[in-house]
Amino acid sequence: MLMKFRKDLMCIMNSFVYEIPTKIYFGENELNGNLKTEIQKYGNNVLLLYGGGSIKKIGLYQKIINELESNNDIKVFEYAGIEPNPRHTAINEAVKICKTNNIDVILAVGGGSVIDSSKLISIGNYYNGDSWDFVIGKTKPEKALPIITVLTLSATGSEMNGTAVISNMETHQKKGVKSPLIVPKVSFLDPTLTYTVNKYQTACGSADILSHILETYFSRNTGLSMLDRVMEGLMKTVIKYAKIAYIEPNNYEARANLMWASSWAINGFVRIDRQPNIWVCHMLEHQLSAFYDITHGLGLAILTPKYMRYALNESNVDRYYEFGINVFDIDKNLPKSEVARKSIECLEKFLYEDLELTNDLKSLNINDEHFEEMADRICKNGTIEGFIDLNKEDIVNIFNECI
Amino acid sequence: MLMKFRKDLMCIMNSFVYEIPTKIYFGENELNGNLKTEIQKYGNNVLLLYGGGSIKKIGLYQKIINELESNNDIKVFEYAGIEPNPRHTAINEAVKICKTNNIDVILAVGGGSVIDSSKLISIGNYYNGDSWDFVIGKTKPEKALPIITVLTLSATGSEMNGTAVISNMETHQKKGVKSPLIVPKVSFLDPTLTYTVNKYQTACGSADILSHILETYFSRNTGLSMLDRVMEGLMKTVIKYAKIAYIEPNNYEARANLMWASSWAINGFVRIDRQPNIWVCHMLEHQLSAFYDITHGLGLAILTPKYMRYALNESNVDRYYEFGINVFDIDKNLPKSEVARKSIECLEKFLYEDLELTNDLKSLNINDEHFEEMADRICKNGTIEGFIDLNKEDIVNIFNECI
Repeated sequence: MLMKFRKDLMCIMNSFVYEIPTKIYFGENELNGNLKTEIQKYGNNVLLLYGGGSIKKIGLYQKIINELESNNDIKVFEYAGIEPNPRHTAINEAVKICKTNNIDVILAVGGGSVIDSSKLISIGNYYNGDSWDFVIGKTKPEKALPIITVLTLSATGSEMNGTAVISNMETHQKKGVKSPLIVPKVSFLDPTLTYTVNKYQTACGSADILSHILETYFSRNTGLSMLDRVMEGLMKTVIKYAKIAYIEPNNYEARANLMWASSWAINGFVRIDRQPNIWVCHMLEHQLSAFYDITHGLGLAILTPKYMRYALNESNVDRYYEFGINVFDIDKNLPKSEVARKSIECLEKFLYEDLELTNDLKSLNINDEHFEEMADRICKNGTIEGFIDLNKEDIVNIFNECI
Repeated sequence: MLMKFRKDLMCIMNSFVYEIPTKIYFGENELNGNLKTEIQKYGNNVLLLYGGGSIKKIGLYQKIINELESNNDIKVFEYAGIEPNPRHTAINEAVKICKTNNIDVILAVGGGSVIDSSKLISIGNYYNGDSWDFVIGKTKPEKALPIITVLTLSATGSEMNGTAVISNMETHQKKGVKSPLIVPKVSFLDPTLTYTVNKYQTACGSADILSHILETYFSRNTGLSMLDRVMEGLMKTVIKYAKIAYIEPNNYEARANLMWASSWAINGFVRIDRQPNIWVCHMLEHQLSAFYDITHGLGLAILTPKYMRYALNESNVDRYYEFGINVFDIDKNLPKSEVARKSIECLEKFLYEDLELTNDLKSLNINDEHFEEMADRICKNGTIEGFIDLNKEDIVNIFNECI
């Protein structure tokens, strides 16, 4: 076991267990024939879960129904209307449908909100009580229905991991549940299904993907540098292709690279050896979404550069330097602190100019009214040991940088 | 589906199915407690398979026996003596032991030769006949014993994929078998077990890892560029840490990075979307090993730069250019052809100076006696559609460049 202390940064070579069992069908029309085969491995009673009407508009709903109805044994039950920042109340309703109809497998068709919801439904099916109990830790997942997903938005990576993030709008809480039980068995990744994702959602989704990598890359615990190199490759990919997809929505190459990168940004591979890996921007963003119901990726896009600038110091400048030269190709002969500053500017250019995302909370009509309360909820009177130590004052400061 | 023809190079966005189910325990002493638990998921009768005495010298054999004997239900049967370039005859003997003792699970402890052998034994257990029949395609794998591995050499990546390469010294044949049935269920990757790997084997193993990535990186079919970026990251990792491990055999960080990179170089992830992906240097090396029983990694180290220089032309110079600037940090402002030449020189410096590997076949007492026959066996009167088209004359030319 090698341990090296470098002021703030800690290099620990952690041991780990790697297991990512999700089977992926990647490409156009891979659904055909394969969807029903995969579903029938788990049973015939399917809960088809989706969000608004977009899957009907793009013909995906009908395609899936046709595929499933071509087999007489399969019975489809539906729950539609899952919202962004999905609510535990909707999940409770869907659980009822599962229990009433002896559902064998959940087919989640959509983006992260729909897939995250399917995860809570899958464990809710074996629990008598409010699904929110899983989120607050009142009960633990013990059994889950198998989940199959058809992804329509490259962003959260939920299609290949065991995390679900759920919101409770009554209590202003947005929190995650993690369990290997809720990792999807099979996910269908068809880049052409994201052609109709609009510019704004493409930008927010890309910001989300990039944030997942940045939160791991800029973390207190480093590990195998092989994974840093992989993360840099993924970040270059997201930055290159988000810009293309933003301008050419039907560019297969761009949509495909974004889609596969979104899964690998957060399926566990790149962060497996750097635990604990505290995602500071996500903690802050979850407060914003819980209070103001804003788009997750947009919140991250606003927060991340401000946080990175706030966190930069002499002892961690090396990390920014590597980021700058390896991801943005900044001249490696410049002073490290200059490369660091430039790297944040490059990130801002990408988010706010190339992807035209809002760079402050004011334009979303968010002021500092709840910042103290949000910071309290994050810190709980203590210190967050993220990439740097952060207390309540720091958190409020970062929020204030955003308005 | 996007298709772009660029003279020799073909960019096809293939569809693919991704499924890499091997569970990995990574780190020092992860065996403890976990090995017997994983074994008992499959049964109690274990075939312990290993090579020469090295696992006894480093105390690993005794550690495993102690771990397994701490459970009274587990019965261990042994087959030792698997050689490098493993022989089908040894495999047939081990299959007999499996059949006689109702083996439930194979525990392969060693490097690629031992693990590859375990794969053929696992399918041989369900076949009445010579295991070589699988290699020549006379029969196909239909069922396999589960395999668990403990890796002691970072090189072939066999611990996380479904390929086995076996030699028949009577017929001078070295060929592969592929099947999802023979992917190990669980592999234990403890970098400290490679501390005793000597300089020469460390160098050959690293050359092998690098070759696996190069064979995919320099291929006719390109695909998601995300995977090119990942490959570049893996190559930088291998080059950096092979040099460190070569000088400091007990450097955990170096051994750990090499070990995890070896698995990811060839577990299918980076090449999944670029099929067919013909590995030309491996085809040539398999002939060398089959005729002269040389170390696989050394054969690849000798062949690869000669092949790369032979294959370079105006239409594929872009690939060498990307390799040069992204892996060896060569000045991107130089003419592409110069970057290409320099990239091959950097590779040669790494293999022949840093790792002190032999750079020609003459020093191994190999002359051109069998080159024609070897080329015939590769080409079978046709053309190999690798990164470039190669006919018999080309293959003989490349072999001749090596003496």
